[in-house]
Amino acid sequence: MPTPIITFTSDFGMRDWFVGVVHGVIHERCPDARIVDLSHAIEPGDVASAAFVLEAAAPDFPAGTVHLTVVDPGVGTARRALAMAAHGHVFVGPDNGVLEWALMDPRAIAHALNESKFFRHPVSRTFHGRDVFAPVATHIALGVPIEKLGPRVTDPVRLARPRLEPRDGGILGRVAYIDHFGNALTTITTEALEEAFPRVGEGQLWVEVVGRKIDGIARSYGDAPIGTLVAIVGSSGRLEVAEVGGHAASRFGFGVGDPLWVRVRGRE
Amino acid sequence: MPTPIITFTSDFGMRDWFVGVVHGVIHERCPDARIVDLSHAIEPGDVASAAFVLEAAAPDFPAGTVHLTVVDPGVGTARRALAMAAHGHVFVGPDNGVLEWALMDPRAIAHALNESKFFRHPVSRTFHGRDVFAPVATHIALGVPIEKLGPRVTDPVRLARPRLEPRDGGILGRVAYIDHFGNALTTITTEALEEAFPRVGEGQLWVEVVGRKIDGIARSYGDAPIGTLVAIVGSSGRLEVAEVGGHAASRFGFGVGDPLWVRVRGRE
Amino acid sequence: MPTPIITFTSDFGMRDWFVGVVHGVIHERCPDARIVDLSHAIEPGDVASAAFVLEAAAPDFPAGTVHLTVVDPGVGTARRALAMAAHGHVFVGPDNGVLEWALMDPRAIAHALNESKFFRHPVSRTFHGRDVFAPVATHIALGVPIEKLGPRVTDPVRLARPRLEPRDGGILGRVAYIDHFGNALTTITTEALEEAFPRVGEGQLWVEVVGRKIDGIARSYGDAPIGTLVAIVGSSGRLEVAEVGGHAASRFGFGVGDPLWVRVRGRE
Repeated sequence: MPTPIITFTSDFGMRDWFVGVVHGVIHERCPDARIVDLSHAIEPGDVASAAFVLEAAAPDFPAGTVHLTVVDPGVGTARRALAMAAHGHVFVGPDNGVLEWALMDPRAIAHALNESKFFRHPVSRTFHGRDVFAPVATHIALGVPIEKLGPRVTDPVRLARPRLEPRDGGILGRVAYIDHFGNALTTITTEALEEAFPRVGEGQLWVEVVGRKIDGIARSYGDAPIGTLVAIVGSSGRLEVAEVGGHAASRFGFGVGDPLWVRVRGRE
Repeated sequence: MPTPIITFTSDFGMRDWFVGVVHGVIHERCPDARIVDLSHAIEPGDVASAAFVLEAAAPDFPAGTVHLTVVDPGVGTARRALAMAAHGHVFVGPDNGVLEWALMDPRAIAHALNESKFFRHPVSRTFHGRDVFAPVATHIALGVPIEKLGPRVTDPVRLARPRLEPRDGGILGRVAYIDHFGNALTTITTEALEEAFPRVGEGQLWVEVVGRKIDGIARSYGDAPIGTLVAIVGSSGRLEVAEVGGHAASRFGFGVGDPLWVRVRGRE
Repeated sequence: MPTPIITFTSDFGMRDWFVGVVHGVIHERCPDARIVDLSHAIEPGDVASAAFVLEAAAPDFPAGTVHLTVVDPGVGTARRALAMAAHGHVFVGPDNGVLEWALMDPRAIAHALNESKFFRHPVSRTFHGRDVFAPVATHIALGVPIEKLGPRVTDPVRLARPRLEPRDGGILGRVAYIDHFGNALTTITTEALEEAFPRVGEGQLWVEVVGRKIDGIARSYGDAPIGTLVAIVGSSGRLEVAEVGGHAASRFGFGVGDPLWVRVRGRE
């Protein structure tokens, strides 16, 4: 068996000991696991951002990776807890939409976490990351099949995701995430661009966001002078808007949800 | 021997290379150790907060864990350095109260770190985390018994801890820590509640903090509508005050040291 | 072969998944590597600060350590990518001066990263940390010699570094870095002090920075009362200016680049 990788995403922050305690739970049960922290800076309860982080990062990991995702404002209530096989990976988290990317795999299989023998005891009221999700993720990394964890779930909670809309001969997407560099990552993937604009070169496209027009898709951040706003296909395979050498979001006021058009030049 | 776990708590912050260098010192000497960062966001020199983090987190780790705790405003002065066996774990840090939780074990045994052969050389004036505490913690993880490290210490520095006071038929505790979610963790443990209010249901209690009254102890953060202030037994086994879906400390101005009463309804 | 250590320094921040994805790329290819994060809080594109972090931290690591350093504002442009053997370590990063400390070893040998078989594919336009530098660092940790990675480079980009100037019977240095504690780390190393002031005791020296005079070099932060400004030889072997129990940089307004004189008392 290859060394298991467990990724970990949460809204726990890095100030307190919550992330460390989860690492301890995993290491105690599976010292061979390699734990990779994706982000613990999700705003408390921001399920949509955590789902986006998982969607952006998980495809970069090898088959068999276990993704532990704990943004769980309903901890202690009747909300279900899930493990899901999808995309060749396994996902563990609350049933609140945070695992939306897994559900986009039509062959995704979800099971509820009902078998308390895989939990850490006693189970607290407020920290299922430590007591339910981390021990279950560890058992999966150690080889427990997800069907042992509880009954099949066929109606997991879905996250409402903005659809791309054809509009005025182009497509309308949204800003989905502002990253550390101030780049605005959007809902428009390379696949969506290819589907919407077959046989159209990137240089033929233009992008409009919050009243700013950007001509063509750049090949690198360094293609244009410092301060220029560029559109570029970023590292997670989606269109992003960046300021060369600057922080586009704070300079231009971009925020999650802002509309973004892509059109072909000459077809406006 | 099971894979050793070394937890690491400090006031080093994450901006500089200090935490990384300590990891390097450990990995160089004991590649098998699993290092778990508890917090490096302790305010510089805030011994009491670091002691609280250790008290809250250490019980979640398995027997044999080594806890490296470096909040050390007296580095380079005559303050002693300690290793301590307590609660089935080992604790390493300066003799300034940061290891208070270990000292609460009546069978705790402390030794001074005098044997410089376990240090990294040359020993700097300002970074004993790297040169003294981390190498010693690593030697302990590798099996060196603490009595080899230096002479027994029978008068380690204690941290003044606010005692719970019986008051008006209830108990008076304090806010001990504000966490990332804005929850106010208190000095009142489940054991203290059971001792003060034997045979009293949680629904019979009420809590008063900074002029706010909270009726009963909630079973989860989701028990009440968004914005409600609830009292709940948190994941480290102590009473905490939280705002459902919000940041209680910033909304209500809670701070470390604020008094908090717990009383039985009808016995005021 | 000893367990390889890979340090990792970047301007990626900790909010997003970029650091985690790089860890995943390394763990997938070399599960035995121990990854040590030095800092991911470098300001975006601040090559000089990243070079300073590497200079301050790398000497604390054992021979054979691989240092992955990704502050790469020119990603996607024609800038070269390098691997360099120096000081008994190996350094991987863009050819923009970030590896300056390696180049200070007169025996440093640099190779361009041209052999794409060592990359992760497809190579994105914007994230060579994931697609070029991390896979190459991992191959090096696995034993690939740097001459296999591409042709020798004899003219790597150097970072302009302020030289120490003899001045008025003393030496003039600069503040090079403000750390988390507010200490001002300077360009003046212990070697420079010994060379400039042979046979002069530390108590004979005085330091002037931004109009403040400091008498003598302290032996520890605890040598003087709270609030005192002290000069001390810090843990990376260079002179630093610190406020006992305080944050010198914010109290006195120190910043990177500020001049700093060291003179011998009585020789002004």
